[in-house]
Amino acid sequence: MLTKFLPFLNWTKSYQRHDLTNDLIAAIVVAIMLVPQGMAYAMLAGLPPQAGLYGAMLPLVLYAMFGSSPSLAVGPVAVVALMTAAAAGTVADIGAPGFHLAALWIALLSGMMMLVLGLFRLGFLANFLSHPVISGFITAAGLLIAASQLRHLLGTDIRGKTLPEVIPSFVAGLGTISWLTLGLSALILVFLLWSRAGLAKLLMRLGLGAPIAKLLGKTGLLIAVVGSTLLVWGTGLDQHGVSIVGDIPRGLPPFALPEFNLSLIQLLAAPALMIAIVGYVESVSIAQTLAAKKRQFIDPDRELVALGLANLGAGVTSAMPVTGGLSRSIVNYDAGAATPAAGAMTAVLIALAVLALTPLMYYLPNATLAAIIIVAVVSLLDFGALPRTWAYSRADGAAMAATMAVTLLIGVEQGLLAGVGLSLVLYLYRTSRPHMAVVGQVPGTEHFRNIDRHAVVTTPEVFSIRVDESLYFPNARALEDRIVQALSDTPALRHVVLQCSAVNYIDASALESLEAINERLEAAEVQFHLSEVKGPVMDQLERGHLLHDLTGSVFLTQFDAMNKLAPETTQACVASARSDTHIQPA
Amino acid sequence: MLTKFLPFLNWTKSYQRHDLTNDLIAAIVVAIMLVPQGMAYAMLAGLPPQAGLYGAMLPLVLYAMFGSSPSLAVGPVAVVALMTAAAAGTVADIGAPGFHLAALWIALLSGMMMLVLGLFRLGFLANFLSHPVISGFITAAGLLIAASQLRHLLGTDIRGKTLPEVIPSFVAGLGTISWLTLGLSALILVFLLWSRAGLAKLLMRLGLGAPIAKLLGKTGLLIAVVGSTLLVWGTGLDQHGVSIVGDIPRGLPPFALPEFNLSLIQLLAAPALMIAIVGYVESVSIAQTLAAKKRQFIDPDRELVALGLANLGAGVTSAMPVTGGLSRSIVNYDAGAATPAAGAMTAVLIALAVLALTPLMYYLPNATLAAIIIVAVVSLLDFGALPRTWAYSRADGAAMAATMAVTLLIGVEQGLLAGVGLSLVLYLYRTSRPHMAVVGQVPGTEHFRNIDRHAVVTTPEVFSIRVDESLYFPNARALEDRIVQALSDTPALRHVVLQCSAVNYIDASALESLEAINERLEAAEVQFHLSEVKGPVMDQLERGHLLHDLTGSVFLTQFDAMNKLAPETTQACVASARSDTHIQPA
Repeated sequence: MLTKFLPFLNWTKSYQRHDLTNDLIAAIVVAIMLVPQGMAYAMLAGLPPQAGLYGAMLPLVLYAMFGSSPSLAVGPVAVVALMTAAAAGTVADIGAPGFHLAALWIALLSGMMMLVLGLFRLGFLANFLSHPVISGFITAAGLLIAASQLRHLLGTDIRGKTLPEVIPSFVAGLGTISWLTLGLSALILVFLLWSRAGLAKLLMRLGLGAPIAKLLGKTGLLIAVVGSTLLVWGTGLDQHGVSIVGDIPRGLPPFALPEFNLSLIQLLAAPALMIAIVGYVESVSIAQTLAAKKRQFIDPDRELVALGLANLGAGVTSAMPVTGGLSRSIVNYDAGAATPAAGAMTAVLIALAVLALTPLMYYLPNATLAAIIIVAVVSLLDFGALPRTWAYSRADGAAMAATMAVTLLIGVEQGLLAGVGLSLVLYLYRTSRPHMAVVGQVPGTEHFRNIDRHAVVTTPEVFSIRVDESLYFPNARALEDRIVQALSDTPALRHVVLQCSAVNYIDASALESLEAINERLEAAEVQFHLSEVKGPVMDQLERGHLLHDLTGSVFLTQFDAMNKLAPETTQACVASARSDTHIQPA
Repeated sequence: MLTKFLPFLNWTKSYQRHDLTNDLIAAIVVAIMLVPQGMAYAMLAGLPPQAGLYGAMLPLVLYAMFGSSPSLAVGPVAVVALMTAAAAGTVADIGAPGFHLAALWIALLSGMMMLVLGLFRLGFLANFLSHPVISGFITAAGLLIAASQLRHLLGTDIRGKTLPEVIPSFVAGLGTISWLTLGLSALILVFLLWSRAGLAKLLMRLGLGAPIAKLLGKTGLLIAVVGSTLLVWGTGLDQHGVSIVGDIPRGLPPFALPEFNLSLIQLLAAPALMIAIVGYVESVSIAQTLAAKKRQFIDPDRELVALGLANLGAGVTSAMPVTGGLSRSIVNYDAGAATPAAGAMTAVLIALAVLALTPLMYYLPNATLAAIIIVAVVSLLDFGALPRTWAYSRADGAAMAATMAVTLLIGVEQGLLAGVGLSLVLYLYRTSRPHMAVVGQVPGTEHFRNIDRHAVVTTPEVFSIRVDESLYFPNARALEDRIVQALSDTPALRHVVLQCSAVNYIDASALESLEAINERLEAAEVQFHLSEVKGPVMDQLERGHLLHDLTGSVFLTQFDAMNKLAPETTQACVASARSDTHIQPA
């Protein structure tokens, strides 16, 4: 029982020496990435560099205690940083004291929301964010993140949160480019892109073993940071237009609840909810992918609780909002993290770094951080997803395109809302115009299929129709119209059989519609039958009047219905040779 | 072709003498009801009495030319009057010049919206208003309408648009009741309620033939109006606190476009859309019910066009918004209206009445109009619908209860929105947690059913699951979780068959989920098969990768699948005696 609330008791019991070794190696590798990434994502969020470093301390310890994934590396991530910047930017300008306060409240609010959703087991709500919408959103957010770093890469003033704001600002800023900054940026970018694969290869060619070379290959970020800092320190480039990080407070973060401000909370509640959902969806899908590889199980609601506590931890330690990040989690997994303790060790290493190393980061150029961000988001961009999704489904493609367009042109929150809204509207539209198939018997079987697609046997006295959707209010009338049409088309008609194999639910509006059909058919001396009504639907129909008023019967199967209503045709058809002729749809 | 745009050319061609007689009789009966009802509903809408009378002229002629129902009686109706009062009340006080202007713009805007929806054949959108929501809304609106007439019935000042406003106002007004007005109201109410059935019976007992007695039985309104007017005129009750209608301008309405005001239009656009939809839904369902009795066909989109033009006609002739009304349409139908010409004749009779009779209406008491409204709305109230709907479906009952509660407590527009919103949310919630049934073969048949409900045959090597919902983003993960669970529960498992008979659509998110299932099963050396995939779903799957990657096969039927994967069990089961044992659900 206790382990339900303190899940870390599970793995601490069986913790062994080789777990410690594995966790420590993973923690070192992740910490080396996390120091520069934390500062970079803080810059992306419009916050001072320490907000990113603090986000890599208490939140990681809390996740290690309450989370269920041994591989997930929690901390500052790019997309959440961008969303934080957008949301905090609506209440204060970057650099103003209100901006950092807003970011802390975003962490607290999204933490509380995650916690509540998790405790009430509402994690399934995140399923309403469809794959195409998430994928489109991440690509568009990646582009906006890259655009936001142009000013650091070029050393000029380019501002704006959406493409219509960034583009004119970019054009106007072209005249004031700092060529020294641009050169430095280009150098670091080329090195980082090369080092992702090239560094490990080089080390192997220099004689190192593959596992060690692969681990050391992850130190590209560290080399770039140390190298560019030394370069600026040695050459005084900061005196010639190359902007640097400057002072970072030494020591552990202050522990304090941020100033309470009700109107601020009201303004930030909606964006915090979206940040909570995006952060959760990103994190849980990474955790599940990594868990599946080891055949482990991730409890989505427990993840929500752990991520919620991690964000509450961020909010009380002057840190930025956090979630599980893709690139560091993969590194963590590859480096062999055995338990969530790896995350806690990462936090300790980060704390040591902040205590000891911050003075050394004074000369770290902002261009290096921007280049780190650019390299991180390049892996988020998936432009092929749009044509691929569009080819599979117009509706999914449209939802993805709308998400991307609105995110790029109007804003990140609006983009997500547009995507979710359009997905739902298109789904409702689809179900409001259901596919209906007139069915006949497949020769040699007891099976019934669409007369337009299969060579099937029918009889003019019986009209069998299968409606391929639950019957509910938006489509309640469509079936009525179709049956009335059949009634006027087929004078020999004596029976209508509604095959309900695809009907998963009949609501009150559809029930009235079925009763109207029954009455109309009765007036025309045609019997109305149902077949293949599923258990839950039958249970429900038994609570209404339809079964009592029905002029015909309810048959277990469509075959039973036809065997009763047109026995000769049906038996002859079963006895006939099986024909698998597939007719192409008209 | 021409008749498509001018549909009245259809019936004018074959118009005959006996059609004329029938139409004229119906027109006279309807006009006798419409003069007092028009004035009463104008009062309900907060408009001068002539706005109701004008609403019974040009709009009726336009509907007669463009509408498709011979029986529908268009004109002012109670629910639309209430909604007009609520919407216009948000921009001006009753009696202020801006109030009437707002009502005219509501007519114009809702007319334009109906016209556009009809021309683009978007009438199906009205299906999103479910039966329970409409039914709950009409009952709640009926209560609010009755409450709004209390001040005329009691001769005291009771105001408010919602129950929380009306109730304290009613309590405060109790001290200033005009007892003369109350007595008069009670007299008229009792007479009107009695006359609905009693007048025709009395006339028959006096020796009149049944058809004539039934027609004259509809003149209860006329008798009440004439009688109460004469009473007030003769006794001077208007000098003793009984309020009267007073001056009504004589002559035809002015023909003019109301003053243009963009901010007014922006404020009224949303309520006008709701009035358009409610008016259309009410009207088309009356028209369809009456048409079904005569086996005639109503084109919903043409109805939208005709009602749109009727409302545009109302907007340019100082009239209130109109739609088809239930009580007058039934009277029109019963009186034998043969063609839409009956409506046009009604309009001519109303015009004659306005030209000749308005001075005679000076002493008509407002209490009579209020009593007419009360009697009309009593037939709208259906309190039994809520328990009936709740018993059939909790979701429908909840949507109905929410519609009623929000309408009564907050407002009519909010009530409708709450109802539609909740219906959709509950539907989405239901589809996000689909019913899944593990299926087995019904002995003696080729049919497969839920193992929990039927005595069926299964084999441990094959796990057959039927998911009773389209697979789309909110439920994409549920199937994955269920199959992973089966995988760990059943070590003997070699095949998983997904029976897709109830799957009407597979979106991109669900496709990814199916691919993930396929990969996971492949890793566990279990084959993944599909059966009974419907044509449209198969077409769609062919555009993705799943069919290519699938470790198993796609079978036409679940029986084919089992016959291939476990032939001995399956054949033995077919040969065994048929068992119809129904197992009660757990």
